[in-house]
Amino acid sequence: MSSDVVAQLRAELGDRVDTDAAALQSARADKSGHASAGAPLAVVHAASVADVQAVLRIAHRTGTPVVTRGAGTGLAGGANAGPGEIALSMLGMARILEIRPDDLLAVVEPGILNGDLNAVLAEHGLWWAPDPASRAISTVGGNIATGAGGLLCAKYGVVRDAVLGVDLVLADGRLLHLGHRSVKGVTGLDLTSLVIGSEGTLGVVVGATLKLRRLVPGEVRTIVATFPGVRAAAAGSAAVTASGAQPAIMELMDATCLAAAHALLGLETPPADAAQLTIQTDGPAAAAEADAIAAVLRAVGGTVRVAADEAEGERLLAVRRAMHPAMETLGTTLIEDVSVPRSMLPAMFDEIARVEREHGIRIPTVAHAGDGNLHPNFVFEGAEVPDEIWDAADDLFRSALRLGGTLTGEHGIGVLKRRWLADELGDDQWELQRRITRVFDPTGILNPGKVFAL
Amino acid sequence: MSSDVVAQLRAELGDRVDTDAAALQSARADKSGHASAGAPLAVVHAASVADVQAVLRIAHRTGTPVVTRGAGTGLAGGANAGPGEIALSMLGMARILEIRPDDLLAVVEPGILNGDLNAVLAEHGLWWAPDPASRAISTVGGNIATGAGGLLCAKYGVVRDAVLGVDLVLADGRLLHLGHRSVKGVTGLDLTSLVIGSEGTLGVVVGATLKLRRLVPGEVRTIVATFPGVRAAAAGSAAVTASGAQPAIMELMDATCLAAAHALLGLETPPADAAQLTIQTDGPAAAAEADAIAAVLRAVGGTVRVAADEAEGERLLAVRRAMHPAMETLGTTLIEDVSVPRSMLPAMFDEIARVEREHGIRIPTVAHAGDGNLHPNFVFEGAEVPDEIWDAADDLFRSALRLGGTLTGEHGIGVLKRRWLADELGDDQWELQRRITRVFDPTGILNPGKVFAL
Repeated sequence: MSSDVVAQLRAELGDRVDTDAAALQSARADKSGHASAGAPLAVVHAASVADVQAVLRIAHRTGTPVVTRGAGTGLAGGANAGPGEIALSMLGMARILEIRPDDLLAVVEPGILNGDLNAVLAEHGLWWAPDPASRAISTVGGNIATGAGGLLCAKYGVVRDAVLGVDLVLADGRLLHLGHRSVKGVTGLDLTSLVIGSEGTLGVVVGATLKLRRLVPGEVRTIVATFPGVRAAAAGSAAVTASGAQPAIMELMDATCLAAAHALLGLETPPADAAQLTIQTDGPAAAAEADAIAAVLRAVGGTVRVAADEAEGERLLAVRRAMHPAMETLGTTLIEDVSVPRSMLPAMFDEIARVEREHGIRIPTVAHAGDGNLHPNFVFEGAEVPDEIWDAADDLFRSALRLGGTLTGEHGIGVLKRRWLADELGDDQWELQRRITRVFDPTGILNPGKVFAL
Repeated sequence: MSSDVVAQLRAELGDRVDTDAAALQSARADKSGHASAGAPLAVVHAASVADVQAVLRIAHRTGTPVVTRGAGTGLAGGANAGPGEIALSMLGMARILEIRPDDLLAVVEPGILNGDLNAVLAEHGLWWAPDPASRAISTVGGNIATGAGGLLCAKYGVVRDAVLGVDLVLADGRLLHLGHRSVKGVTGLDLTSLVIGSEGTLGVVVGATLKLRRLVPGEVRTIVATFPGVRAAAAGSAAVTASGAQPAIMELMDATCLAAAHALLGLETPPADAAQLTIQTDGPAAAAEADAIAAVLRAVGGTVRVAADEAEGERLLAVRRAMHPAMETLGTTLIEDVSVPRSMLPAMFDEIARVEREHGIRIPTVAHAGDGNLHPNFVFEGAEVPDEIWDAADDLFRSALRLGGTLTGEHGIGVLKRRWLADELGDDQWELQRRITRVFDPTGILNPGKVFAL
């Protein structure tokens, strides 16, 4: 049966069907570290919309699950392919089909890397604002599938704010054009938004019409403020938000994170318990805004440095950008992703401290403080997340929900958080959402076991 | 049977069930001028979430259609209630439940008027950006139901960009909390976006968590530019967009619209064929931006006036704001709402001229030129839209679709445009969308005959 599926794929797609052992292995995992139970049937390297339609028709006919993958940089296991499944790689569909500076839009294939797209757009004085930390290595299609966020979201929005339309291949191989090319459009239901963040459960995104911005004119100013402890730093970020300032970036690192990043980069060891805010302002008023923010931070007890120039600013921000490799020096990490209303950021840090205390573990945490999105890092030994770490994560998730927050700000549910999904949505909404997936995919072949599996 | 439904409603809701003849009549129509075939069973003035749930439970049990209404300012007939239907009025649920300047959010009931909400928010230095021309008389719930736009969309976004979550009562009376309170959140499918613009087909919005902005600091500058003909004015707006300027408002009036508004306001008759752009800039750089835009407009042949102060600016913008009453002086109007990519605005005006020529009618047109959304006004005698007007409208819709545009930028499908919906969506997507409505409303009692009826 399985060999028959591979034979059918080969008959239609030839050498774009890959059963090389290394390819099959790499399709089992993403950057979360979590891997599926075993190798998938095949990796298909799609080169065209017709390829994707052919794969889905075969999968539909044979009842074979399909797991769509971009660059595999996800952090929730959402694109991990396992036994009996087809891994459908979109990396080969990476063309920019159209750039329209006059309409501030671009039409792209899903496999293009976010960073590569933005390098080309910059030549036209344009950019696509979503900026996950992975932007140099993650695809636009993956950004859409997860509803990615990033560092600039409070000021420049998330993926949902930056996509006008998507072309979607359904489970049975039919192609739909969702959304529009105009700034406004309310014809029927907003299926484009429904697809954003749907993690491969509704169809395969084979094209996207992206809403662009003009590059922000003026300079970028960088501020670093150090506080005695993470709660003081969180209060500092709340003071900046309350002042009405709108930084482009406002990142918070707790003491463990800051020390690990300094160690990785060979920088001087920071004072014990020193937590840090790293802030950037941009636009024509960047310098004045930076000065105002520095004054706010000094008033609440921060030790503040405003970078002398953009080069120093990039060096200061590099400490934050080194976070993921710095965490890997501490052990295996489960990178969590809760998001709370901004005013609840200090309370959420209190909850993290409580969970650390009650569970006897350390949870180094970095946060996109400007938008209330925290990444607590659970550090452990070995390859699999131990039960006691999941118990602590469970405690942390419930705290986030109690504070009016959400399980995942930008990484998605995938396999790693599916058991908490109904806790946030409620059983009625969980079931309603699952039924909506069945409208797109009646036989359940699209990314089964992800998001809505219990 | 019908009298039994009313009796059941009265038993649970008492005098909030209104069968007064005038109330029933007013629930038949909206601002489109279109009315249903006859009076509904009753108007229920909901005062609480529990009221809405009670209505839906009775409706579900008895198979009675429910048409949810706000202020009745719609332009597509989407809230018109007819024989055998319950009109569910949300105007009595108009409280602001929470304003959080620190989290830049407000929680409101759906019946509050957009203008009333913004008056309260202004006291906190905040605003909710969606600004349909009807904002003084339209409800937030209606704005959400239609996915409303307005004048400020190119710079400040549409409703989809300004709602974090909605509370929704389903067809069977169950209450769901969709969305989140945090800036980021990707837990499950984005049902909040799906509800925005769903025109009463998925459930009854009984509460909304709105994403706010801080009031824009600085002054507002107003520019008026007159051109010899609408195409020259459209080219002027394209030149402004291409220059990289980002006006808050950029409105275009063709010669008939301009003359009618001047006549209504008792202003001097403008030169024959004079079309006009009305532009506002805002923020700290408003004056410099206004000067730059004025230079662009003069370079492409516009006769430009920059208002000396905000009071003069408001007088200049008042001409644009007088458009709907000015059109009513010409006859009965069918206000259309196509939207095209901004670069296609001049071509769309060419198409409107062609339709005028070939169908032997006048189509005065005003446009939100900054975002490519046009309101062609079909003027006729009598109460019902004559077939020859629909033929011309059909021609116009097909032109908009050919130019990469959409049937409706901000008014919705309602009853008036349902026959063209499948032309834009395609049959496959039309059917998929209809099936999604059935997941929310298995027996089809929510606003039947609207949007997805053929």
